[in-house]
Amino acid sequence: MSNEIIVTAAMLAIGDELLSGRTKDKNIGHLADVLLLAGIDLKEVRIVADDEEAIVSALNALRAQYDYVFTSGGIGPTHDDITADAVAKAFSVPCEHDAEAMRIMGEMYARREMEFTEARQRMARMPVGSKHIANPVSTAPGFNIGNVYVMAGVPQVFQAMLDNVIPTLRTGAKVLSTAISCPYGEGEIGTPLGLIQKAHPDTSIGSYPRYVGQFFSTEIVVRGRSAELVESVAAEVRAMIEAIRQSKAKENQSAEA
Amino acid sequence: MSNEIIVTAAMLAIGDELLSGRTKDKNIGHLADVLLLAGIDLKEVRIVADDEEAIVSALNALRAQYDYVFTSGGIGPTHDDITADAVAKAFSVPCEHDAEAMRIMGEMYARREMEFTEARQRMARMPVGSKHIANPVSTAPGFNIGNVYVMAGVPQVFQAMLDNVIPTLRTGAKVLSTAISCPYGEGEIGTPLGLIQKAHPDTSIGSYPRYVGQFFSTEIVVRGRSAELVESVAAEVRAMIEAIRQSKAKENQSAEA
Repeated sequence: MSNEIIVTAAMLAIGDELLSGRTKDKNIGHLADVLLLAGIDLKEVRIVADDEEAIVSALNALRAQYDYVFTSGGIGPTHDDITADAVAKAFSVPCEHDAEAMRIMGEMYARREMEFTEARQRMARMPVGSKHIANPVSTAPGFNIGNVYVMAGVPQVFQAMLDNVIPTLRTGAKVLSTAISCPYGEGEIGTPLGLIQKAHPDTSIGSYPRYVGQFFSTEIVVRGRSAELVESVAAEVRAMIEAIRQSKAKENQSAEA
Repeated sequence: MSNEIIVTAAMLAIGDELLSGRTKDKNIGHLADVLLLAGIDLKEVRIVADDEEAIVSALNALRAQYDYVFTSGGIGPTHDDITADAVAKAFSVPCEHDAEAMRIMGEMYARREMEFTEARQRMARMPVGSKHIANPVSTAPGFNIGNVYVMAGVPQVFQAMLDNVIPTLRTGAKVLSTAISCPYGEGEIGTPLGLIQKAHPDTSIGSYPRYVGQFFSTEIVVRGRSAELVESVAAEVRAMIEAIRQSKAKENQSAEA
């Protein structure tokens, strides 16, 4: 497979609570699932604290290296929500109240007979030149600047924003995969599986150990960008498992004889 | 609080499966919990693929910046387990079969009447000069070199290895915290909470929005390294919530009047 388009991405999850264990991140796994389906390769994830220097430095490294960067967290109304400022700093542009964001948020709060407080107005701030990412859950928009997509940390909002972003992205050739359940541990399959991988550099063969009770078993996943290739390599993996089974049956027979 | 010892750490989670969504990481949250209790500040997490260049580059950045680096994943017996080689490369030392690891693993497989295959022997490879991290679950050890602790990706094994590592680490002043459940969203508390934070720079006040049904509520967490300080700031936060409640009650009364 040559000529296939590869589109890469990174995620930057922002928030002290992710590093203190208080919040177990749910956005990374969701983004990974969605990008895989879209044909975008998630290559790296970083989690940093609500710390301007840490955000700026991670963001500048990631946006230079990958086609897209998705961030989560730090765009709420409180003092520890500093993502918009940090992104503006990374792009060397001012961070200002966006007129259109002020309008739609002002209307929403008016409709709900709630005060559009100074804190709530903080959520309308974004780097000058950003485009909105619509937020159907709670109105306050995320934003896109350059190749960076800034979204909320609350999973319902993150997911809704991401749904609005995905159709606007350039996507690559989709990765197809087949999973094969293998009753043997990696210690038994490691060498023959390595040989299969070596023979098929256009596929990526992963093996994921599971430890249940006292025994390891494995899930083997063959990935590639051609359905025929993935299926033919998967057939080789199944043949390998069958060969191990037969060899074990023979061993048991000789032991009993 | 001056003179307090701050010990910092980073985590590097390694594995294609974490980036494809196939595996939802469980080790980051566990490490975060354990380090918080130990008094070590987790400052950054990175997730990278089973890719030597990506591992080496992330590891060298993290080990230069933080006191400790913990890795998970990529130390099994298959071709995609390249963490030991990548760590050796990062430290510019050879990666070799460790004699003691070969001995204890050889004995374990002999006891179980299982073959100590070439693939299984891969798990005894580590950067020359490493110390073992004992693995009570499945014997094959993790290893420590410099300020880097290399552990398995399977959560049961990661957790068991981490239990063996923690008592050997230098730890800092523990972070104490108090959580306060707040019925109001961040838009209502943002401004007064920001003022409390500003008045107490020695504490870190986080607010974590929850979105249930149509309403945001918040969990406010006050963190600090002195119990008295955390308690006095928490009292200010509780007073702030009560003031909002009274002001809302008054508004409702006037609306009804």
